[in-house]
Amino acid sequence: MTNPAPLANVRVILCATHHPGNVGAAARAMKTMQLSQLYLVAPTSFPDPQAEWRASRATDILEQARVCADLDEALAGVALAIACSARTRELAVPQVSVRAAAGRAIEVAQAQPVALVFGNETYGLTTAEVNKCQLLATIPANPDYASLNLAAAVQVFAYELRMALTGDLAPEGKVPELAGFEEIEQFYAYLEEMMVDIGFLNPEHPKKLMPRMRRLFGRAQLEKEEVNILRGILKSLHQPRPRKT
Amino acid sequence: MTNPAPLANVRVILCATHHPGNVGAAARAMKTMQLSQLYLVAPTSFPDPQAEWRASRATDILEQARVCADLDEALAGVALAIACSARTRELAVPQVSVRAAAGRAIEVAQAQPVALVFGNETYGLTTAEVNKCQLLATIPANPDYASLNLAAAVQVFAYELRMALTGDLAPEGKVPELAGFEEIEQFYAYLEEMMVDIGFLNPEHPKKLMPRMRRLFGRAQLEKEEVNILRGILKSLHQPRPRKT
Repeated sequence: MTNPAPLANVRVILCATHHPGNVGAAARAMKTMQLSQLYLVAPTSFPDPQAEWRASRATDILEQARVCADLDEALAGVALAIACSARTRELAVPQVSVRAAAGRAIEVAQAQPVALVFGNETYGLTTAEVNKCQLLATIPANPDYASLNLAAAVQVFAYELRMALTGDLAPEGKVPELAGFEEIEQFYAYLEEMMVDIGFLNPEHPKKLMPRMRRLFGRAQLEKEEVNILRGILKSLHQPRPRKT
Repeated sequence: MTNPAPLANVRVILCATHHPGNVGAAARAMKTMQLSQLYLVAPTSFPDPQAEWRASRATDILEQARVCADLDEALAGVALAIACSARTRELAVPQVSVRAAAGRAIEVAQAQPVALVFGNETYGLTTAEVNKCQLLATIPANPDYASLNLAAAVQVFAYELRMALTGDLAPEGKVPELAGFEEIEQFYAYLEEMMVDIGFLNPEHPKKLMPRMRRLFGRAQLEKEEVNILRGILKSLHQPRPRKT
């Protein structure tokens, strides 16, 4: 796995994590968004089978994780440190949304190491820890219950980093071939002719039937194959009535 | 807790969830973003102490959860069903990013029920299940490892719903009072005077010293109190030198 450069420059620092399962789930969350550098500051238990189980196929992130004695050690070499906290505080550190923070992180990570710093499950980050960072990022949440699980918060932040890098691209996949103008017009012509023939559409008083049909199918942005199917259905249904002579 | 109307209109449907812990973690993820309607289609084990443990303080969501025999039952009354899947498929259902899907979900949920449909941990949603939905939403992810944990995927989707509703607002909190123009100019004047006085700035050859200082402090967007502190520091440091007479 080769990471796009800015993502390879982002480290996730978990401070004093209590549940090893959360370390594993955070590793998994990181890998899904192509982050790979995990730093653990004084974890309660690491390595731990719970962490490996929750990491699923991201155990490589755990194996490469660095265990540090304190936050200073984990921040060595970092140009931009972003504290992640649910609590709003009156602090010197400027507070921004996680989306804004992700945008700034990707800018800096083009050239220099960036760290996302997450606190303990129960107490979050200490004021001293936040003050070692240059930004405080908050995930907008329910004012009555803003307590995201640690790995869930890592997932949201990692997702926003990836979105900041790649933009909101439509998912890759086979884009079906749309029907061309002539095919669609032939379909409408056939539909109209058929409706007139079965007496559903009165050419003297057409009302807005055809414009409404155009609106409906226009919204659907018909594919080539769909137009063929629709014509097929109509053809099968439609038994031409004997014309009055 | 009173939900903002559109969020109260969104239900999360988990199909054939295998690990009860994931059900609990999904409930917690929902509550952090103010979603409350959880539907469980044929869960392996529910209720379950693992679910309650992982739900943390979101057990109310579990208590109100509805268990359904199949997806049709869970989708009853829904106007827009969004399938959530990591896999891209060649299907009739239009595929969009989770951000785009969240925007559409919030639009519809102003007036009508919306469902987010998540599949089993191992197999995801079946093709039949996806085909009961009108949109297929994908979370952009690492092409080599796109396997988000179920609750992590619920967290990202719920977060995007909330962002679609509230916009990317700056976090609430006390906004510090910025220094006014005059205060800042007085500070610069004092700084310059002092630097000339100590011989650091030569008024005959000022180079770009003051413009650089302005650039630095301008970027910081000085607060009122900070300007006072800076002036205080300078004043304390600066012992006026005896003028040559």
